[in-house]
Amino acid sequence: MSSPVYPLSGRPMQMGLLLKLPYVALERHLTRRLHELGFAELRPAHFAVFQSLMPQGSRLTELAETAGMTKQSMGYLVDYLEGHGYLRRVPDPLDQRAQLIRITQKSKKLDEAVETVLNELHDAWAGRIGRAKFNELRDLLGDLVNALRDTAGAPVHSRR
Amino acid sequence: MSSPVYPLSGRPMQMGLLLKLPYVALERHLTRRLHELGFAELRPAHFAVFQSLMPQGSRLTELAETAGMTKQSMGYLVDYLEGHGYLRRVPDPLDQRAQLIRITQKSKKLDEAVETVLNELHDAWAGRIGRAKFNELRDLLGDLVNALRDTAGAPVHSRR
Repeated sequence: MSSPVYPLSGRPMQMGLLLKLPYVALERHLTRRLHELGFAELRPAHFAVFQSLMPQGSRLTELAETAGMTKQSMGYLVDYLEGHGYLRRVPDPLDQRAQLIRITQKSKKLDEAVETVLNELHDAWAGRIGRAKFNELRDLLGDLVNALRDTAGAPVHSRR
Repeated sequence: MSSPVYPLSGRPMQMGLLLKLPYVALERHLTRRLHELGFAELRPAHFAVFQSLMPQGSRLTELAETAGMTKQSMGYLVDYLEGHGYLRRVPDPLDQRAQLIRITQKSKKLDEAVETVLNELHDAWAGRIGRAKFNELRDLLGDLVNALRDTAGAPVHSRR
């Protein structure tokens, strides 16, 4: 198959859109399937919250920084998810004036559902481009993510 | 290198985050470099507009649909970019009551700058994981994007 091109310029797509288009397709599929599975309040924007949360809980500023959003925008998403029982705020044991945002039992059920749906989607994608190519793609993306994580000045999911 | 894991669950990352993390890194780098090159008004959210625009112009509803955003959110981005000279609205030749959103000369200069910056970034990424692996990754992503584009019900950048 020939390389996909940008609609506007007709030039071959660069990595930006090559990464983004499958991600957007995945997010849409995931949202639709989660609605079917009973998690009807979730919108694609909410995934950025769960993707950024640390196991011990995270401060709002950390979530915003990791997700590349303003504190105000992240606060809006967190308020929504807290209101629907997916998150709770607890005092930070390291600083009683601060709050940590943590997942709830409902979020753990959501996490299981996400895992199931993404496994289905992986199988569907492997069916389209071939299992060997799919596995190779996943490994190469893993290498890239590891390489970018090691880059000074571009930390992702750094531990506290 | 071992596979990267989700911070929250410790499970191996699925395709969602494997695609998203490099994309977010790319968007941040691109925004920073574009600011240095004189396109100081641009924020990461604006890329979704240019990525969705068709050469002959696009209607607001089409842009919103392609980008997976509400019409209101897309309208906000388009207003901002029009106010800064990157876009203009013209009557749709197919329907005088409707408007098409088109790029300007300033957007064409922006497009050249984006191409330059992304080529730099591609070289940097190829330096990290190896040129052969990088080219393989780019080809496999192209195959996946083509495969998803052919999927019924998941059109990306369909022509009018």
